[in-house]
Amino acid sequence: MPDDFDRYISKTPDFPKPGIVFYDISPILEDRVMVKRMIGALSQITAPMEPDIIAGIDARGFLFALPLAMEMDCGAVMVRKAGKLPGEVFEQSYALEYGEARLSLQSSRQLEGKRVVLCDDLLATGGTLAASAQLVEMAGGILAGAVAVIELTGLKGRERLKCGVAALQTYEF
Amino acid sequence: MPDDFDRYISKTPDFPKPGIVFYDISPILEDRVMVKRMIGALSQITAPMEPDIIAGIDARGFLFALPLAMEMDCGAVMVRKAGKLPGEVFEQSYALEYGEARLSLQSSRQLEGKRVVLCDDLLATGGTLAASAQLVEMAGGILAGAVAVIELTGLKGRERLKCGVAALQTYEF
Repeated sequence: MPDDFDRYISKTPDFPKPGIVFYDISPILEDRVMVKRMIGALSQITAPMEPDIIAGIDARGFLFALPLAMEMDCGAVMVRKAGKLPGEVFEQSYALEYGEARLSLQSSRQLEGKRVVLCDDLLATGGTLAASAQLVEMAGGILAGAVAVIELTGLKGRERLKCGVAALQTYEF
Repeated sequence: MPDDFDRYISKTPDFPKPGIVFYDISPILEDRVMVKRMIGALSQITAPMEPDIIAGIDARGFLFALPLAMEMDCGAVMVRKAGKLPGEVFEQSYALEYGEARLSLQSSRQLEGKRVVLCDDLLATGGTLAASAQLVEMAGGILAGAVAVIELTGLKGRERLKCGVAALQTYEF
């Protein structure tokens, strides 16, 4: 039985700016049955990546990091916007349309030699996930894959990642 | 058997600024056994609040929203920093040390008459949770409680909330 996640993903045209459609998983989250189905389906596509650690990407990727880690019987780490994590961090900048932003990962996390799977709600241009992948490599981790609820295939974000990528629901743009 | 979460909470003095100790749950998240114990313990303190919806607070509260919702067999919603959510939103400002910030909740979420439990990693002065509580009330929800992994009791944040508050680990400051 294919889960029709599409019906539970709202589409808002011209948000956050003209020409962009915003795909919002809030209706999935709000539904007690669909939230379990989503985590079940994410677990199915994550399992073949054999993760030792799930890396949740700030902020909506945090929603999935713990449920996935618990299903995979492994731990989780946060990839956070720069300036938010205490202690020594690795930092990686990535391009925004105007200017750039930075992501960070604590160097005290034990990623050396571990298989790390990135998770986020949406894979678009792949800039955030590619920067996160670089942080995993700086920390000595093995990039084992990336999973998302939604992938915008027309933006070819997966081509920027040197690992397997899996998503539950795809749209072109 | 009391779980010694304290050993898995790192303390960084003078972060993000002098005089503040930053309590970081990253060591809990990273440990596959402790992450399950934490969610189990959070579920135990959340269950008596009988939630229909778990509201995760941007960003670290998102870590717990789905595991708690799945354990409680209910849905989840995001309380987000302003400007991030598409569609019509309720907004509530709250004071920071200098200036203010705003949180938002989509008005399309179905909170009318629902028992809503707020979740975040840390209860300090309670400003964020109090603003979130106001958003729940604007949406017609019933504030059923608030849960956190850590509570800084000396800051008396729970006095700002008109609901039951529960935390796994307390520190004075």
